[in-house]
Amino acid sequence: MDFDHPGRLQKLRGRMAASSLDSLLVSGRENVYYFSGFTGGESLLLVKEERAFLITDFRYREQAQEELAPGCELRLRSASAAAAVSSVAREARLRRIGFEEEQLSWAAHGRLEAKLPGKRLIPAGNLISGLRMVKEPGEIDRIRESARRTVRVLSRFQGTIKPGRTEKSLARRLAADFYRAGGEPAFDPIVAASAHSSHPHAVPSDRRLRRGEICLVDLGGRWGLYNCDLTRTLAGGTCPRRFRTVYRAVLAAQEKAIGAVRPGVRASEIDRRARGCLKERGLEGYFGHGLGHGVGLEVHERPAVNRRSREVLREGMVFTIEPGVYIPGWGGVRIEDTVLVTASGCEVLTPAPKTLESCRLEW
Amino acid sequence: MDFDHPGRLQKLRGRMAASSLDSLLVSGRENVYYFSGFTGGESLLLVKEERAFLITDFRYREQAQEELAPGCELRLRSASAAAAVSSVAREARLRRIGFEEEQLSWAAHGRLEAKLPGKRLIPAGNLISGLRMVKEPGEIDRIRESARRTVRVLSRFQGTIKPGRTEKSLARRLAADFYRAGGEPAFDPIVAASAHSSHPHAVPSDRRLRRGEICLVDLGGRWGLYNCDLTRTLAGGTCPRRFRTVYRAVLAAQEKAIGAVRPGVRASEIDRRARGCLKERGLEGYFGHGLGHGVGLEVHERPAVNRRSREVLREGMVFTIEPGVYIPGWGGVRIEDTVLVTASGCEVLTPAPKTLESCRLEW
Repeated sequence: MDFDHPGRLQKLRGRMAASSLDSLLVSGRENVYYFSGFTGGESLLLVKEERAFLITDFRYREQAQEELAPGCELRLRSASAAAAVSSVAREARLRRIGFEEEQLSWAAHGRLEAKLPGKRLIPAGNLISGLRMVKEPGEIDRIRESARRTVRVLSRFQGTIKPGRTEKSLARRLAADFYRAGGEPAFDPIVAASAHSSHPHAVPSDRRLRRGEICLVDLGGRWGLYNCDLTRTLAGGTCPRRFRTVYRAVLAAQEKAIGAVRPGVRASEIDRRARGCLKERGLEGYFGHGLGHGVGLEVHERPAVNRRSREVLREGMVFTIEPGVYIPGWGGVRIEDTVLVTASGCEVLTPAPKTLESCRLEW
Repeated sequence: MDFDHPGRLQKLRGRMAASSLDSLLVSGRENVYYFSGFTGGESLLLVKEERAFLITDFRYREQAQEELAPGCELRLRSASAAAAVSSVAREARLRRIGFEEEQLSWAAHGRLEAKLPGKRLIPAGNLISGLRMVKEPGEIDRIRESARRTVRVLSRFQGTIKPGRTEKSLARRLAADFYRAGGEPAFDPIVAASAHSSHPHAVPSDRRLRRGEICLVDLGGRWGLYNCDLTRTLAGGTCPRRFRTVYRAVLAAQEKAIGAVRPGVRASEIDRRARGCLKERGLEGYFGHGLGHGVGLEVHERPAVNRRSREVLREGMVFTIEPGVYIPGWGGVRIEDTVLVTASGCEVLTPAPKTLESCRLEW
């Protein structure tokens, strides 16, 4: 077993007690895995004071038997999930049951409520996201490994970007590269050329790359269930002057932000640094999204790194720093790395080259 | 434009009127696409009597402008999604707003409710799933194309299954094959050998294939946003007698079910046919899941095809027929096709060979 699941459960129980919960119903797939080691889907983990029950059906029996961590017990359900939760709740005389309000659908909540008369269902999803936000050494190892391999995938991929290829064919090629390298894509990779790169969430199209164009590549791999996230903006041939100006501004903003990362600093302050740097160059108006987001078992998780974030950085947090300048009709430049908050500062986990020179394509 | 979005919206409005809804908030990504043509995420479509608004943020502006179908208008939001819904609701004096109860989280529902004082939020997700369940000719074309290409991917893949390769490496290869073929995997492919194949939802492991083993392959591709789903159970070398017996039983059950498909028949009856066929052979106890599920923009959608299903088959429905026999410690056999209900019967959209002979691996 790579991870200390009983230790995680104990931490969770401490937080539950502080919120006067006698139990917590874990429903998000990544959260069920985090506490139980079980990688299957469509299952629930009901955590109470002394015990924790994985509620699943026969399809996952053998998998659960193999994977369940110490401290977790298997409860095969034959009827509905709500009925199974109800039966554990009655046996254990639970009264205040926490649930994940952002994960559970309104309908599933209603089905639970109907089967739990006299019990209180209490929204408590932040207890879990708060725990997962600070990564353990074993988790950091996995993210570092994903990041290292993603950098390698990008480095090989750069050689295949040629004029005449479509964004879509390049994006598919990139996705396949992750499987070939023994992992999988953490999300659909983005390859966006020129004006198209001015959409922060561009969907690769059938447009063909032309000589000298900007080419934004946003990719991330998943190995061992942990993700990373990386963006580089490349340019073919002689970079036009405007590209160079914008590129240098975005890179400066990113470096400013990275330089400010250390335990105790507010996440909103990191965002402010990057934004301030773009403001000095009159480009702030073209940067319309938050600076970054946590990365781990999910590609987007806590902490949010933006103007409104209330998080304070702690050692072991992993998140992206990804300022961008998007100019409609011209194009966009985004530079994104996944970083780790260390005891004294910041480690960039995705050290793909990012000088203007290194982003020049050979055509 | 491939699809008649205004026609879909009109059908939806008919159903809304029958439920006394003056509006419907569409939140599932596939549903937003179905009615508006917009392929981005994190957006809402608010459909009212005469107009429909795509509520999204600046990141998707250009994409929405390009993709939005006639009859849909773009509403860029600067504040929260709930605030944007509230502002449209006030302008249009909406009173009874339907929402998708299985898609919307409990928390998102709460945020909407807080911004919509005096309005009623009414669960109405089945209106949409009921519409999507019957496919239009253009949708059937896309599923047929996905199915045709998936059959080809499987056929090529069979040649690469060799002793000594791990389940995981084969599954990854299969996923990459979809990208190479210009599509993408509709879900993580399953490659499960021998005893491992007795898990209906086996996760590919690091076990190496041995000569003469059973090898279950569950795969599906997505092209043009439409999915298909296909399982074949292969066997290397001289198939053991038990494999042959079980295989023939599962195939007979599947053919029995396929033979019963036509408009007007209950979905539960199709499940009953397959189950009855396994019962005659004493294998019913090893078939613990439903017979099938609808396939389209999602890999699992309506209609459910199982004992408790209340659906009646209609021309244009597309679903899987996938009986299986799973014997713990020995292995499992599942045979799955995606089928279409035609005017007079059933068309198998995934015509990969499935005779016992054709499933023999060359080693």
